[in-house]
Amino acid sequence: MPDPISFIDEQLGRFRDELYDFLRIPSVSTDHEHTASVQAAAAWLAERMEAAGLTSELIETSGHPIVVGEWRGAPGAPTVLVYGHYDVQPPDPLDEWTSPPFEPTERDGRVYARGTADDKGQLYMHVKALEAHMASTGALPVNVVFVAEGEEEIGSPNLVPFVEANRERLACDLILISDTDMFAEDLPALLFSLRGLSYFEVNVKGARSDLHSGNYGGAVANPANALASILASLHDDRGRVAIPHFYDDVVEWDAETLEQIAALPHDDEEYRADLAVPELAGERGYGTLERIWIRPTCDVNGLLSGYTGPGAKTVLPNKAMAKVSFRLVPNQDPARVSDLFRLHVAAVTPPGVTVEIKDLHGGRPWKAKLEGPAYDAAREALKEAYGTAPVPMGGGGSIPIVIDFEEQLEAPALLLGFAQPGCNLHAPNEWLRLVDIEKGIKTLALLYGKLGA
Amino acid sequence: MPDPISFIDEQLGRFRDELYDFLRIPSVSTDHEHTASVQAAAAWLAERMEAAGLTSELIETSGHPIVVGEWRGAPGAPTVLVYGHYDVQPPDPLDEWTSPPFEPTERDGRVYARGTADDKGQLYMHVKALEAHMASTGALPVNVVFVAEGEEEIGSPNLVPFVEANRERLACDLILISDTDMFAEDLPALLFSLRGLSYFEVNVKGARSDLHSGNYGGAVANPANALASILASLHDDRGRVAIPHFYDDVVEWDAETLEQIAALPHDDEEYRADLAVPELAGERGYGTLERIWIRPTCDVNGLLSGYTGPGAKTVLPNKAMAKVSFRLVPNQDPARVSDLFRLHVAAVTPPGVTVEIKDLHGGRPWKAKLEGPAYDAAREALKEAYGTAPVPMGGGGSIPIVIDFEEQLEAPALLLGFAQPGCNLHAPNEWLRLVDIEKGIKTLALLYGKLGA
Repeated sequence: MPDPISFIDEQLGRFRDELYDFLRIPSVSTDHEHTASVQAAAAWLAERMEAAGLTSELIETSGHPIVVGEWRGAPGAPTVLVYGHYDVQPPDPLDEWTSPPFEPTERDGRVYARGTADDKGQLYMHVKALEAHMASTGALPVNVVFVAEGEEEIGSPNLVPFVEANRERLACDLILISDTDMFAEDLPALLFSLRGLSYFEVNVKGARSDLHSGNYGGAVANPANALASILASLHDDRGRVAIPHFYDDVVEWDAETLEQIAALPHDDEEYRADLAVPELAGERGYGTLERIWIRPTCDVNGLLSGYTGPGAKTVLPNKAMAKVSFRLVPNQDPARVSDLFRLHVAAVTPPGVTVEIKDLHGGRPWKAKLEGPAYDAAREALKEAYGTAPVPMGGGGSIPIVIDFEEQLEAPALLLGFAQPGCNLHAPNEWLRLVDIEKGIKTLALLYGKLGA
Repeated sequence: MPDPISFIDEQLGRFRDELYDFLRIPSVSTDHEHTASVQAAAAWLAERMEAAGLTSELIETSGHPIVVGEWRGAPGAPTVLVYGHYDVQPPDPLDEWTSPPFEPTERDGRVYARGTADDKGQLYMHVKALEAHMASTGALPVNVVFVAEGEEEIGSPNLVPFVEANRERLACDLILISDTDMFAEDLPALLFSLRGLSYFEVNVKGARSDLHSGNYGGAVANPANALASILASLHDDRGRVAIPHFYDDVVEWDAETLEQIAALPHDDEEYRADLAVPELAGERGYGTLERIWIRPTCDVNGLLSGYTGPGAKTVLPNKAMAKVSFRLVPNQDPARVSDLFRLHVAAVTPPGVTVEIKDLHGGRPWKAKLEGPAYDAAREALKEAYGTAPVPMGGGGSIPIVIDFEEQLEAPALLLGFAQPGCNLHAPNEWLRLVDIEKGIKTLALLYGKLGA
C-alpha cells in the first residue's frame, strides 16, 4: 500500500476529473430555478463521501439539504468536524465569463468555473485527503464528522438550528474549514479573523405608477433621486460609515497583530494596477490590508430603477431599489447594525417617498486565537506541502457559521484556505490553481495525520 | 352633402376603428427591434392622408421616415403646417399594463394603449378633421402641409435638418400642433410654454471586473456608492438643482401670467391623493403648477448596477449607470446645461472611479405669445366644441421641434391638445377619453374652417 501522499500523486488526474463533475452541477442556492441542481450536488457529494470510506447521510431541511459524512473508527483519537458548502453564488453577469461558468476549463495552470474557490473545490480537497488515508492505510488518523451545507451563500438559515439540535453528534475537538485564500501564490496563511455581514434590500416607493418626467417632474419626489440621497448619506467624506453609533463596538487590534499585518509582502501599486482602478479608496487612516480585514465597510451591491434600456426614456420612476451591505468586524453585531441602519435611513429619507427595508442576510464577525496543537499541526503541514511557513492573515469575507460552531460545540475553529487572492470569488471567471488542488489535498492529508499522531 | 361636423358624427365609429389599427403598430422609435413597425406606422399614416384627400410622401432619413401630406388648393387662404409624431415611447414595465399596450382597449369611456395621447391619437384627429372638410365640401378651407415624424421620442435628430432643407416647401402662416393636455376634463387650454430637456446617461466605472465585497470591500471605490453621491449632489435641501450657474438663464415670469396660473382650479390635496404620494415635493417657494410649468427640474430616469435579482449577492460591482435628465425653462440652453452638468460631475466625482457622460437628448424650452387671429380662432373653436373657453396653461413636457419650426419658418406655433392630465404619458396604461376623440376632431374641423374664413 502506498502512503497517502503517494496515493494523491497517483490519483491526481482522477481527483481533478471528479471535481470537474462536481463543478458542472449549477448549485446556485439563491435562485429557485436551480433547486434541483442544489439537490443533485448534495447527492453527488454524499456518494463521493461513501466512496472515500465515510458513511453519509442527506439531511433534508426546509431549504437545501445538509450532507453529513462520518467515520468513528479511531477511539481515543481527536474528532475533527470538517465544514464546507456545496452551494455557489449566481454566475451573472454571464457575458463577462471567458468560458462557461459551469463548464470547468483549464487555462494557464488554473481551472475556471463557478465554485472552484468558493467552496466546492476546497470542500472536495478534504474528501480526497480523507480518501488518501483510507485507501493507503485502511483507516483515518482521526475521527471525522463532515458537515457540508447548501445554503452558505444565502446566510445558512438551516445550519444553526441543525447544529443546535445535534450537539452530541457533532461534538468535536476541532472545527476545520477550507473556504478562504492563501496570502499569495506559494505563501500559505492561517486566518486570524473574518468579517461579519449585514445585507439589506432598500425599496423606495413614490407615486402610484411611473409618471412622465415632463408632466410631473418638480411636483413629486423622485424615488431614484431619494434613494441616491439615502445611499450618499451612508459615508462621510473621509470614507467612514456615517451612521450614528456604527463604530461603537469596533475593537481596536493589538499592536502585535498590526505589526504582523504591516510586515506582510503587500504592494499597493501592484494591487491597484491588478484591479485597474485609478487609485485605491476607502476609510482614511488605514492601510489597504487593514481596510479589508479589520475595518467595517458599506457597499451598494445592486441598484435598479426606471428605464435602463438603450436610449432615452423620460420616465419619472415610482420605485427604486438598492441592495446594501455592511462588512462588520469584531465585536459588531448584525442585529444592532440593522437597527442603526433603519434608524439612520428613517432620519435621512426625504419627504414624498416611503422606504421599506428587508433584512436579507446577517452574520457575526469572528476572531481566532492562533494557538494550540491544531494550529501548530497546520503550520507544519503547510510548510511541508508548500515549502513555506504560513503567515497570519485576516479574512475580508464572512463565514457566519464559524462563530456559531465555536459557541455551540465549544471547540476552536481553524481556517486553512487554498484559493488565491484575485480568484474572482462571487464574480465572473472564478478560478483555482491546479497546483493548489494538489498541494491543498496534500496539506490536508498531512494535517489529518498530525492531528491523529 | 353634410357639413364637416355632421360628417364627423356619422363617421365616428369608423374613425375610432382606424385609430385603433394605428395604435396596434408598435412604433417604438428608441428600440432597434421595432424599426420595421415604425416604418409600417409611417406607411399606414401616408395611406390615411391620401384617403383624406392629401397627397402624401414618405421621406426617408438616416433614421425613421418623415411623412409629408399636402393640399394646396386654396390660393389666397393661409397655409397651416400641422406637425405631429407617429412614434411612441417604449411600453415597459410591461407587467404594469392592465391591458396589452398595443391592443387598444376601451374601459370607462377611455381607450387604453401606448400612443393614444402621445401622439398618435392626437395626430390622427387632424387627419380626420381634414377628411371631414374634404368629404363634406370637396376642398379644405386652408392650404395644408402636414409633417409627421417618427423620431420625436428620441430627440428628432432628422427633423431639423429636413426643415432647414425644405423651408420653401414648408413655408406657412401658422404651425399647429396637438401633442399636449387640456387643463382638466371639459376645461380646454392653450399652451403658453413648454419646458426643454437635457438628457444624459452617466456611466461610472471602477475595477476591471465585479469583485467580492468581502475580499475587496474597503480597498477600492464602489461605483454604485460613487454614483449615488454624484446624484445626491444634484439637489440642495430646498429642492433646487445644486449645479453652479444652473439658474443663470431662467426667466422670471410676468405678474399677469403668475396670476393666471394662481387662478386655475388646481387642488394640491386632490392632486396628491390621485398620485398616492405621502406629500408633494419639489423646489420650495413655488406652487405645484409653477414647479411643473415654469421651473426647471432634475430627475433620475433610470438606475442600474450590480445584482438586482432575488436574494443577496455580495458583489462589489465594477460599474453603475444612471439616466439623468433636466427639464429646462426659458431661456435655458441644453448645450450650456450639458457643459455645466459635466463640470459639476467632474468636480464631485469621488476618487477611485472614472465617469463617462453621454448626451442622449436635448431640446430647447419654448414661450408662446398668446395673441393674433389664429389664437382667437382656436379659442372660439374650443368654446364651440367643449362649451367652455380655454384657459392658458404651461406645458411641463418638451416638444423641442416647436422653437425650431418657429425660427426656421418664421411663423408662430399654436399648441392645442386633447389629452387629459393623468393620462399616463410615457407610463403604463396610457389613455385618451373617447369623448375627446370626438370633440378633438370637431374642434380642429371648426378651427380649420375659421382659419380659412
